[in-house]
Amino acid sequence: MIGYAFMGKAHSNAWRNVASYFDVPAFEQKVLVGRDAAGVAEAAGKYGWAETSTDWRTVIERDDIDIVDICAPGWLHAEIAIAALEAGKHVLLEKPLANTLAEAEAMTAAAQTARAAGVQSMVGFNYRRVPALALAKELIAEGRLGTVRHVRAAYFQDWLADESAPMTWRLKRETAGSGALGDIASHAIDQVLFLLGDQVTEVSGRMHTFTTQRPGEAGLEEVTVDDAAWATLSLSSGAIASVEVSRVATGRKNSLKLEIYGEKGAILFDLENLNELGFLDATVSVREQGFRRILVNEPEHPYLAAWWPQGHIIGWEHTFTHEIRDFLLAIDAGTEPSPSFEDGLTVQRILNAVEESAAAKSSIIQLAGTPAGTPTALTATSEGA
Amino acid sequence: MIGYAFMGKAHSNAWRNVASYFDVPAFEQKVLVGRDAAGVAEAAGKYGWAETSTDWRTVIERDDIDIVDICAPGWLHAEIAIAALEAGKHVLLEKPLANTLAEAEAMTAAAQTARAAGVQSMVGFNYRRVPALALAKELIAEGRLGTVRHVRAAYFQDWLADESAPMTWRLKRETAGSGALGDIASHAIDQVLFLLGDQVTEVSGRMHTFTTQRPGEAGLEEVTVDDAAWATLSLSSGAIASVEVSRVATGRKNSLKLEIYGEKGAILFDLENLNELGFLDATVSVREQGFRRILVNEPEHPYLAAWWPQGHIIGWEHTFTHEIRDFLLAIDAGTEPSPSFEDGLTVQRILNAVEESAAAKSSIIQLAGTPAGTPTALTATSEGA
Amino acid sequence: MIGYAFMGKAHSNAWRNVASYFDVPAFEQKVLVGRDAAGVAEAAGKYGWAETSTDWRTVIERDDIDIVDICAPGWLHAEIAIAALEAGKHVLLEKPLANTLAEAEAMTAAAQTARAAGVQSMVGFNYRRVPALALAKELIAEGRLGTVRHVRAAYFQDWLADESAPMTWRLKRETAGSGALGDIASHAIDQVLFLLGDQVTEVSGRMHTFTTQRPGEAGLEEVTVDDAAWATLSLSSGAIASVEVSRVATGRKNSLKLEIYGEKGAILFDLENLNELGFLDATVSVREQGFRRILVNEPEHPYLAAWWPQGHIIGWEHTFTHEIRDFLLAIDAGTEPSPSFEDGLTVQRILNAVEESAAAKSSIIQLAGTPAGTPTALTATSEGA
Amino acid sequence: MIGYAFMGKAHSNAWRNVASYFDVPAFEQKVLVGRDAAGVAEAAGKYGWAETSTDWRTVIERDDIDIVDICAPGWLHAEIAIAALEAGKHVLLEKPLANTLAEAEAMTAAAQTARAAGVQSMVGFNYRRVPALALAKELIAEGRLGTVRHVRAAYFQDWLADESAPMTWRLKRETAGSGALGDIASHAIDQVLFLLGDQVTEVSGRMHTFTTQRPGEAGLEEVTVDDAAWATLSLSSGAIASVEVSRVATGRKNSLKLEIYGEKGAILFDLENLNELGFLDATVSVREQGFRRILVNEPEHPYLAAWWPQGHIIGWEHTFTHEIRDFLLAIDAGTEPSPSFEDGLTVQRILNAVEESAAAKSSIIQLAGTPAGTPTALTATSEGA
Repeated sequence: MIGYAFMGKAHSNAWRNVASYFDVPAFEQKVLVGRDAAGVAEAAGKYGWAETSTDWRTVIERDDIDIVDICAPGWLHAEIAIAALEAGKHVLLEKPLANTLAEAEAMTAAAQTARAAGVQSMVGFNYRRVPALALAKELIAEGRLGTVRHVRAAYFQDWLADESAPMTWRLKRETAGSGALGDIASHAIDQVLFLLGDQVTEVSGRMHTFTTQRPGEAGLEEVTVDDAAWATLSLSSGAIASVEVSRVATGRKNSLKLEIYGEKGAILFDLENLNELGFLDATVSVREQGFRRILVNEPEHPYLAAWWPQGHIIGWEHTFTHEIRDFLLAIDAGTEPSPSFEDGLTVQRILNAVEESAAAKSSIIQLAGTPAGTPTALTATSEGA
Repeated sequence: MIGYAFMGKAHSNAWRNVASYFDVPAFEQKVLVGRDAAGVAEAAGKYGWAETSTDWRTVIERDDIDIVDICAPGWLHAEIAIAALEAGKHVLLEKPLANTLAEAEAMTAAAQTARAAGVQSMVGFNYRRVPALALAKELIAEGRLGTVRHVRAAYFQDWLADESAPMTWRLKRETAGSGALGDIASHAIDQVLFLLGDQVTEVSGRMHTFTTQRPGEAGLEEVTVDDAAWATLSLSSGAIASVEVSRVATGRKNSLKLEIYGEKGAILFDLENLNELGFLDATVSVREQGFRRILVNEPEHPYLAAWWPQGHIIGWEHTFTHEIRDFLLAIDAGTEPSPSFEDGLTVQRILNAVEESAAAKSSIIQLAGTPAGTPTALTATSEGA
Repeated sequence: MIGYAFMGKAHSNAWRNVASYFDVPAFEQKVLVGRDAAGVAEAAGKYGWAETSTDWRTVIERDDIDIVDICAPGWLHAEIAIAALEAGKHVLLEKPLANTLAEAEAMTAAAQTARAAGVQSMVGFNYRRVPALALAKELIAEGRLGTVRHVRAAYFQDWLADESAPMTWRLKRETAGSGALGDIASHAIDQVLFLLGDQVTEVSGRMHTFTTQRPGEAGLEEVTVDDAAWATLSLSSGAIASVEVSRVATGRKNSLKLEIYGEKGAILFDLENLNELGFLDATVSVREQGFRRILVNEPEHPYLAAWWPQGHIIGWEHTFTHEIRDFLLAIDAGTEPSPSFEDGLTVQRILNAVEESAAAKSSIIQLAGTPAGTPTALTATSEGA
Repeated sequence: MIGYAFMGKAHSNAWRNVASYFDVPAFEQKVLVGRDAAGVAEAAGKYGWAETSTDWRTVIERDDIDIVDICAPGWLHAEIAIAALEAGKHVLLEKPLANTLAEAEAMTAAAQTARAAGVQSMVGFNYRRVPALALAKELIAEGRLGTVRHVRAAYFQDWLADESAPMTWRLKRETAGSGALGDIASHAIDQVLFLLGDQVTEVSGRMHTFTTQRPGEAGLEEVTVDDAAWATLSLSSGAIASVEVSRVATGRKNSLKLEIYGEKGAILFDLENLNELGFLDATVSVREQGFRRILVNEPEHPYLAAWWPQGHIIGWEHTFTHEIRDFLLAIDAGTEPSPSFEDGLTVQRILNAVEESAAAKSSIIQLAGTPAGTPTALTATSEGA
């Protein structure tokens, strides 16, 4: 595994525990790789890795390494992933696939070549393995919503709501590629594609940065990525999806919200309550129709039989355990794990189109001459009878 | 009052009851006007009107009429409202102001002329008088959210979700002007303007009709208005609002949802639970921060002291009672009731810009050559330890 | 109508509006009766009563009076109701039936005598006419829950949570009979009986007064009724219901909550969201089971076709409109309106049994010699990895 | 560790992961003990234990064993725990302490003797380590609720709602001690004591078995424990707590619900949404009062800094990780871990008092002679205007 920060910790948790819950092929947590020798040593001790290294190139050449799990920052994805695939290692790569479309295309080509030689690859859109969303996918695939008409997807966080929050690599275009768009819209868009099993044909978008400077080490520095983005996506089925993301949505912590409206039913989901799925079956008599709160925590639900009895909820990190379980099973079976690098590239192209559309601004209508400012004051008070 | 269908019934309820709860100037429910003599007679009996007429022109000329409440369909608004104002009657007009921008402008001009002569007018965006939204307005005006960054507004209904639902005048451009856009986006946009006390400077939009033909009296007829619409609005304060509306959002009955995210706080609202306001105060210690469910049902809340003790919730129709109370008080005081025809025109211009932008389609990016269809199938099943 | 305070205002609203929504026999709002001539005159003007009187005895003797609606305080119920029934007037009486069991029994006897002569009577447990609860009753009667095993009923308010809230007649045994028990447990118990269509066979109860003195006109006065009460009721079907009520439940405004657990399903309700019913159908596949939020606002639902289109919610006061509609229809049809005085007496007997059981205290186990106080302090802090 | 079923799996997860998140003294997962050699070997492999044994007596005598974690069924608790403590091993024991009061008293005596010799013990009421409940405890201890008046505690599950669910050891008095009472009321009662830091002085209770026979290996067998139980507890502070538990509450999966009403505020919790705490601060202006949904997922909250960024929710099993972290830190520091065996005994005595009170039935009032069955049928239908 390369990288041991937030994602490295989450992936390590999954590697350390997956075999306790699922029947997966035997494996060992061999080497943890990072730039700082002391840091990587401490992390390896905590997270259960047998060895450490500061040189990923050497490690991916080792004969006793079969799988490379890449949790390094996005700007390193292309170089490491291509090298690992060329070295014949199966690759699990954190999302997003890459910071640029060119990198993403090169990586996908490498993945296709490797796949022909039996070397597998997977991109880590872990929310596909939230049991409630896996159930949603099943219900949609079974036709329980009928034709889906529109989807409302939002991913809202608020860790940048405070305008004095400091500059980080995530706020610079050269290191992060984009802001909320690449970081969280990527998840929202992948879910739309995953749940509907559909393709995007048209994109229109807007992006905005509310706080354009933030305190860095040498005073105020320019924020060169978006705080928030909006898009509408046309899908080949005729459905339309709206996507709205923000890292300044005060009070929303990690809220990926999905609303899917079909002819025969509808689905609701919020990542802050990830054990629940809202489902409305419109074929039921109107008299007793309503959104059901399904506590997706039964042995009958995807992945859940492995864990605890009903009602004993699981956490966010379990999605990675499910992801690695499916990755290991696919490698063992010689099948292609999903989502593939192609899936990652598809998301990247859509993100790119959002940026292009936002830059074009050509369909924005200017409004001038609004009527002389009539006050919208409310004159009512609480006076009563 | 002219018109006695849905809106006429709701306005009548308000006229019949307002004086039982609020201290308003004395008035009489004089004449109900409608096209069908038998129908209007029955309605007048039920709803408390003393007389009936089938000729609105005669009625608005009567000396014993001071106020004209127009609940007729949109295509009649301009003619009746202008005539009534010219006849020196105060006018309460159901929203939207008009079906076309030209009509809306003429009506606003008439209202301005009349106002100079002490004749008042008001457009019926009744949701400004939902107590929870009036409270939201107060909180925002007091600076409790700080600078508002973005707003997420949606108005979702599902009465057209069934594709066999029949053709009506609401689905024809010539009678309805537009579809979900004019009918319900108008409410959502008015709320954005009302709550933020701000102006829109830029608009971009999309519109879509999912069911393009519906059964009419003579077989399938073309639907010439939108089922759903999406827009982003830039406000002069720098805030951005997304607006999304649909009449095919299966499972949503009358859900006007607002989410307002500011620097210091956030607000949530859903018309299906109109007695509640969500409020997060981000200046509170993080340890105890969270969205509050305020049951807006206390004597301290706007309009509520007039009704029942705390926790005895009010219904949708009460918003009209509040509207008419404020209208009557403004007339009595010789002040301008709000929202004015100018406010209605402002909304109309924004709706128009959404239509223009949607027609332009110039910032839509076409996506071609998505990577060879990697299946997004979920391989996981419920297997466990 | 006798009385024009809180309940008088609510009943007046219903009388004033019922014919606008429902097909009921024609009637006139004749006389409003109260002790204070000026007060009753003002109220009559506001609420739509043609005449006023300060002498209920005279009014109930009038030939042009057919119905007496009694909204006077509980200690006057027996005298007025018996006199009105004996005068051959149909009687609608606010709950609770009476302050004492003896009065309740005398009133029920009078009602039975009158009924034999075609004179009807009804006790105003208005929550039977909440559409969501009427729907719940239908679902239970249709067997959708199977055998009901247990019910959890609570009625929580907080208007006495502040210990400096002043003394009122509601806090004195001689005027109010009891406290939370008679005032709100009566509603909760009536709902259990109504929804299950069952009888109580055994009762055990507790009562408690948290604030025993409150500021009165002449300094601190003794509170002689309960702030809160708890009971378990055995029903003849074998079901068990718990009832818990409080007027010091901080944060709960008017929350009558019901949870009904049966073999085949379950039902949830909260009066603060009275347009919603929670329903779980346990015969549905486990994979998609969950509590549905039914917005009880469709024409298919009890009473709703009379009001507004779907999703336009109604308020608390509408329950009285439904009650009076049903009362008028029953009188017109010569059938017995429900709930009857017998139903009111049944509730009274149960309340009485709760008081007896609470006074007996005979099954309370004293705990002594708890182990030497081991502190239950939490030593954990927020320290992390 | 002794036992490797449900609780053994959950404890193993905590032992395997605690050092990855928290700074705890170093330890090794030495021996897993179970009755079935093959079963224990498989479990040890999965859950990370180095060795296995089928003889707990031998293991607790080993010099290289310092801690014994007892996850065996309740009827084995006393024997193993006393032996382990006498052997000088620190003991972590799953709840409930024991099946009988006599055993619980003997165990507590053993724990007190051991403690004097520096040998620690702890009973596994893991819900004390739900971060939201730890936060609730902090808020209450800080006086944020003022004087607590009443508590409403319920623990509802539905795994016995199906009357054909088979007989198990949990349904026999000789193996389980009691039913819902010991299994889940123990958790609810422990929370009341933990959160309020108070003692119970009086108990009154009821118990009921709805399904008295269930299919066993040899046909229908008698269920000799309760399906549901109800109690009211008086606390020495003057507060009153109601406790209601059921394993037949259809639709409730693992719902431990707490509502705590104080003079100055109130708290809500539901284990099915364990990352959330409801908190109402009644010292805030009435205009903006309401229950806050605090997502207890911030670094500022108990235990959370160790896990993931805000909004990335944790699961049920994490409570054991917190429990073992606190247990290890207490042992390391030579302090007494909490909850102690005395705490476990206190709960046991209260459960015992519930059983005694339920058996006495002496305050149950029989109701006879309810008035001739007036039907409670609802005559209203959906007819409208």
